[in-house]
Amino acid sequence: MLLNNKISIRFYIRHILKQAFLIFLFANLVVISKWFIPWSFQIPISIAAILGTCIALLLAFRTNQAYDRWWEARIAWGAIVNDSRSFIRQLQTFLPVDTNHKTYLHPFVERQCAWCYVLGDTLRRQPVSQRLEEFLPSQEAKQVADAHNPPNMLLVKHALAIRRLYDEALITDYQLVQLNATLTNLTDSMGRCERIKNTVFPRTYTFNMQVFIYLFASILPFCFDDQYYYLDVPLVTLISAAFILIEKSAIQLQDPFENQPTDTPVTTIARSIEISLKSMTGYTIIPELLVPERYYSL
Amino acid sequence: MLLNNKISIRFYIRHILKQAFLIFLFANLVVISKWFIPWSFQIPISIAAILGTCIALLLAFRTNQAYDRWWEARIAWGAIVNDSRSFIRQLQTFLPVDTNHKTYLHPFVERQCAWCYVLGDTLRRQPVSQRLEEFLPSQEAKQVADAHNPPNMLLVKHALAIRRLYDEALITDYQLVQLNATLTNLTDSMGRCERIKNTVFPRTYTFNMQVFIYLFASILPFCFDDQYYYLDVPLVTLISAAFILIEKSAIQLQDPFENQPTDTPVTTIARSIEISLKSMTGYTIIPELLVPERYYSL
Amino acid sequence: MLLNNKISIRFYIRHILKQAFLIFLFANLVVISKWFIPWSFQIPISIAAILGTCIALLLAFRTNQAYDRWWEARIAWGAIVNDSRSFIRQLQTFLPVDTNHKTYLHPFVERQCAWCYVLGDTLRRQPVSQRLEEFLPSQEAKQVADAHNPPNMLLVKHALAIRRLYDEALITDYQLVQLNATLTNLTDSMGRCERIKNTVFPRTYTFNMQVFIYLFASILPFCFDDQYYYLDVPLVTLISAAFILIEKSAIQLQDPFENQPTDTPVTTIARSIEISLKSMTGYTIIPELLVPERYYSL
Amino acid sequence: MLLNNKISIRFYIRHILKQAFLIFLFANLVVISKWFIPWSFQIPISIAAILGTCIALLLAFRTNQAYDRWWEARIAWGAIVNDSRSFIRQLQTFLPVDTNHKTYLHPFVERQCAWCYVLGDTLRRQPVSQRLEEFLPSQEAKQVADAHNPPNMLLVKHALAIRRLYDEALITDYQLVQLNATLTNLTDSMGRCERIKNTVFPRTYTFNMQVFIYLFASILPFCFDDQYYYLDVPLVTLISAAFILIEKSAIQLQDPFENQPTDTPVTTIARSIEISLKSMTGYTIIPELLVPERYYSL
Amino acid sequence: MLLNNKISIRFYIRHILKQAFLIFLFANLVVISKWFIPWSFQIPISIAAILGTCIALLLAFRTNQAYDRWWEARIAWGAIVNDSRSFIRQLQTFLPVDTNHKTYLHPFVERQCAWCYVLGDTLRRQPVSQRLEEFLPSQEAKQVADAHNPPNMLLVKHALAIRRLYDEALITDYQLVQLNATLTNLTDSMGRCERIKNTVFPRTYTFNMQVFIYLFASILPFCFDDQYYYLDVPLVTLISAAFILIEKSAIQLQDPFENQPTDTPVTTIARSIEISLKSMTGYTIIPELLVPERYYSL
Repeated sequence: MLLNNKISIRFYIRHILKQAFLIFLFANLVVISKWFIPWSFQIPISIAAILGTCIALLLAFRTNQAYDRWWEARIAWGAIVNDSRSFIRQLQTFLPVDTNHKTYLHPFVERQCAWCYVLGDTLRRQPVSQRLEEFLPSQEAKQVADAHNPPNMLLVKHALAIRRLYDEALITDYQLVQLNATLTNLTDSMGRCERIKNTVFPRTYTFNMQVFIYLFASILPFCFDDQYYYLDVPLVTLISAAFILIEKSAIQLQDPFENQPTDTPVTTIARSIEISLKSMTGYTIIPELLVPERYYSL
Repeated sequence: MLLNNKISIRFYIRHILKQAFLIFLFANLVVISKWFIPWSFQIPISIAAILGTCIALLLAFRTNQAYDRWWEARIAWGAIVNDSRSFIRQLQTFLPVDTNHKTYLHPFVERQCAWCYVLGDTLRRQPVSQRLEEFLPSQEAKQVADAHNPPNMLLVKHALAIRRLYDEALITDYQLVQLNATLTNLTDSMGRCERIKNTVFPRTYTFNMQVFIYLFASILPFCFDDQYYYLDVPLVTLISAAFILIEKSAIQLQDPFENQPTDTPVTTIARSIEISLKSMTGYTIIPELLVPERYYSL
Repeated sequence: MLLNNKISIRFYIRHILKQAFLIFLFANLVVISKWFIPWSFQIPISIAAILGTCIALLLAFRTNQAYDRWWEARIAWGAIVNDSRSFIRQLQTFLPVDTNHKTYLHPFVERQCAWCYVLGDTLRRQPVSQRLEEFLPSQEAKQVADAHNPPNMLLVKHALAIRRLYDEALITDYQLVQLNATLTNLTDSMGRCERIKNTVFPRTYTFNMQVFIYLFASILPFCFDDQYYYLDVPLVTLISAAFILIEKSAIQLQDPFENQPTDTPVTTIARSIEISLKSMTGYTIIPELLVPERYYSL
Repeated sequence: MLLNNKISIRFYIRHILKQAFLIFLFANLVVISKWFIPWSFQIPISIAAILGTCIALLLAFRTNQAYDRWWEARIAWGAIVNDSRSFIRQLQTFLPVDTNHKTYLHPFVERQCAWCYVLGDTLRRQPVSQRLEEFLPSQEAKQVADAHNPPNMLLVKHALAIRRLYDEALITDYQLVQLNATLTNLTDSMGRCERIKNTVFPRTYTFNMQVFIYLFASILPFCFDDQYYYLDVPLVTLISAAFILIEKSAIQLQDPFENQPTDTPVTTIARSIEISLKSMTGYTIIPELLVPERYYSL
Repeated sequence: MLLNNKISIRFYIRHILKQAFLIFLFANLVVISKWFIPWSFQIPISIAAILGTCIALLLAFRTNQAYDRWWEARIAWGAIVNDSRSFIRQLQTFLPVDTNHKTYLHPFVERQCAWCYVLGDTLRRQPVSQRLEEFLPSQEAKQVADAHNPPNMLLVKHALAIRRLYDEALITDYQLVQLNATLTNLTDSMGRCERIKNTVFPRTYTFNMQVFIYLFASILPFCFDDQYYYLDVPLVTLISAAFILIEKSAIQLQDPFENQPTDTPVTTIARSIEISLKSMTGYTIIPELLVPERYYSL
């Protein structure tokens, strides 16, 4: 997530540099061709305006959908925060007051923390084994790290541990089901993130966008009365680049789990969940919040 | 689902070729008629711009609704992933620890895998009997294949099997109801997909779109001061074709179960559910992920 | 619901004929008045463009909201499909295996089918008594047909029948409540349809639309340099009629229970629910799907 | 709610008369100042068009949000219809068959009817005591009328009455909770209406709107080549008034509980709930539907 | 929340003064540079119009998303109102009739009031200890004030108190779970507010906006035929400032917990919850509603 301070303009420029340069070359090509080939006509500027309106509306669509994906990813992680707290609070309420928290409650807290970190790492295609060893007994950690889908395996471990509580008569039938319902919520949030990660934004729209922008860039130079190289080329380049800037912003937003500065800050959120859960359950050592060192938090 | 690599431009062009050619002929007709009939007037270009704005807004509406259908289809399949995992995890938690998994749990896993594949095939109007035989005992497979609606029949089989667990006192009254609630979620996702499949996008909008595009294409040539065949025809054709390109993109998106490259990748998702469920429940042979061979995954 | 084939262009034209003719007369009035009264000024065409943009945006709003109502009606009926299946599947699971289905299950199936047909007919203000006699014992049929709100009365009958199952100890306390929850879902879908049926789309927007279109139609002729009757009148008529075409399409969509070709196909859906429920519960005689004979299905 | 018939154009005009007159004076001021001060320049009409596009988009935003509030209010009342029916149907199912309905069921029916009327009246800041006396025993009516929030107090009365059923062993523990859940739904709908009532639409947007409209109205006269008082003033007034008309329509929609013709018809809905509940529960005297006498129903 | 009366225009102006002044300087720079450097070309005004349309659409996107955040914050607080009432009403129903309310019910009421106030203060980064001492026994108040996340700690306190009711056999197993479910709803609303508070609106859009506005402001002066300082500078400044005004309005809306006049009025809502809960549960001293003294309520 980009923060409100310390950001450099270079971050924005870098992403459109290549394509802006292509548009610049293309604008040169079109404008210079006007010198050598004696085109006798002039295209009404309104034609460019119609294309401009279309591009603007396509960009509005693109921006909206990208924002919705980004916001949905954030909502999924917000739900993870809520359900993590509710899950631990439910256990606190359901377990009899004289239960040994160290034996019964803390393993759930640590597994839940591990789940949050590991889900973030898995979505970003990062290795997870180190995280697991930090929170789980080494045998369980290995078992989870080897699984096809580590976060899902952690939820299975949760479920089996809940079953053990039931077998030891620490929770009732009804409470067993209720805790399982919270696990179902966590499964849903995990699935939501995986869906956003694995679904490619319809590629046809990127193609359509480019068709319109290049059509616009080739028509625009023919709309000017006079022919000034220093007017035509910068104008065509700047306006097209501004269009591309918006499209790139949308592309950054729409994929929020790519280990990039514009990501949903999953590691920061996982840490804040860890702090929340540990301070709810009487841990004495509670980690610090992650303080971003640069212009973004991950 | 179209992937980010290996795609050919031919894919996009192919879909608009026919209609772009029609527009090309139509543009010729209008432009050539201008030579033979001495029209003494000129239409202000702003009239074309007004129509252009209208077309752009209609396209924005169309694109939005098509995207929403496509995204809803993807959400329904995301929910199927989640509920499949939750269903098996619930069974794992509810069945006593010493239950024989091979007898009690695995039939549910296999029936659930069959359900996912069969739902995808049914939506695409593909034959399902082979899939069923892969996962179910041959008698049950035949019974399901002959049913009016095979995926719905599989859910009924699930329900009856859950009832048998209850009759054998392996699950409690409350757990019976809870498992049924998960089946209800699967019913809802199935119904969502069927609704998208069976609901024709309002045809009036396709008609309105064409009215506006042809009105635009017939007015545009009369808006140019001078009459250059090589200017008028390409411009009218290109801009109208660009409009049609967007409409066709919307049409592809809005019907996501047509066995086309732009489909929701239901087979790929069903396979990943199979992997997920089998690795959760201790299967030793787990299939591979489907690797797309071309520029799309189905 | 309009289908993808067999549709005639007459369907679209018919709905705008009256208003297009009014606009045509109005355009004549304005254009001819220009001949007799020597207006010395000319209005910039941009003024018409500004009004055109406004009309386009108002139409986009109108189209969106109308589509949302139409889609919500379809979603409500999709939910009815799902909940009907889930209701019967729940009964199948909850009733002991050796229950006589003919006595206990089939009356629910038939009442549920009746409910679907009757809800559709009530929304369309059609008579319902014939449908009821087809599915219910004649005394119950009469009682329901005489009720203030027949579909609601059918749900009450369902509820009392569930209570009888409970009194006969065929279902438990918890299952009683769960079945009632499914009835609540059906109540909600019914209420959603009634809400769409009974809520008039804000009339002010129709009025605003007309203010803008007539303002546009009276300004447009004053924007042309020259005065050609054969240019002005067709242009004003065609463009205004195109605007009205979109508005009429919205009006058709926004009221989906009017016994019109653009309706939500409630009878077809009710029939497919009947097929689904009867084939789930071992009926031997199962009706055929409704095949549309014309360019729409009801 | 405005109905589809009998409406007079005066209703629409009345609301914009004051502001249209202000704009008319303002237009006169600007146009006449052009005569006395020799402005030597002319503003390109495109500047007015840019502002026009902005105004159109702001109005589209405004209209959308206002419509959403209005539709949400209608949805809340639709939910009240559904939950009222479900609440009474649940009681019918849960109470043993031989319970005396007059003693146990009918007080709930009457209190629920009272709740619907009183909620509507409270939202519209109308007195409620008469309604209460119509449905409740006079002591309870007085107690509720004196409460800080009468509809909320009625829900508390419901809750205590449910508790009495439980204490008399007429309903089980689980049914008690389930009925409470329906009360929670009613609380949510009530809260939704209160939220819409108490939240002022962001005032900055009204201000922004006026900034743009007055900017537009002051620029427009300078965009005409020639200076015709009879052209400039009506055009500026009409177009600005058309903009204001849309804004006023939005303002009417966005506040649906103001005892105005454009209100959500809460009294009519409450009456139809009363009819529905009473005919479900065997009342012999059932009131008539409210028939609107003028062009709206309240 | 800004109210409908007593507001001064200064409030609006203040927020854009700095940036409007920057634009004014920039416009001077561009216009004056036109005098000294003999630019021989003129840019078609349509180029400015295309940029204007883009800016308008970007602003529409911005405004929509900001409004959605603001409305979501309001919805979260509406849900808090509903769930607070439902929580207390549930306790009233579940606790046996002869329970001493002072001992068992009132601590919940006071803790719930504390939670509402403290959540608002925490979101606004205000100190909370004074509020806590007002409602809680001093030891508990201190414990909560020292917690990492005071409102979350209050929910844990609620949960433990519910557990004590269960241990004293005042509520059943099922009611315990149901009350916990209401706490989960409160956790979700709290998480929603925290998500809105902690998520920076994508900064790229602010940057894009500025790129477009400055591009627009530098192109506009070159679009006028003639060169009038007194025309160019005010027009460029006013239109750009109007754009910025809309953006600033969005920025104010999108962050609703900043202790600003445009905030969601969390303190006012918390007070009205306090009144509601206390009058439901027989308190004799009930505080007054907060009456706003200025043009906003907090």
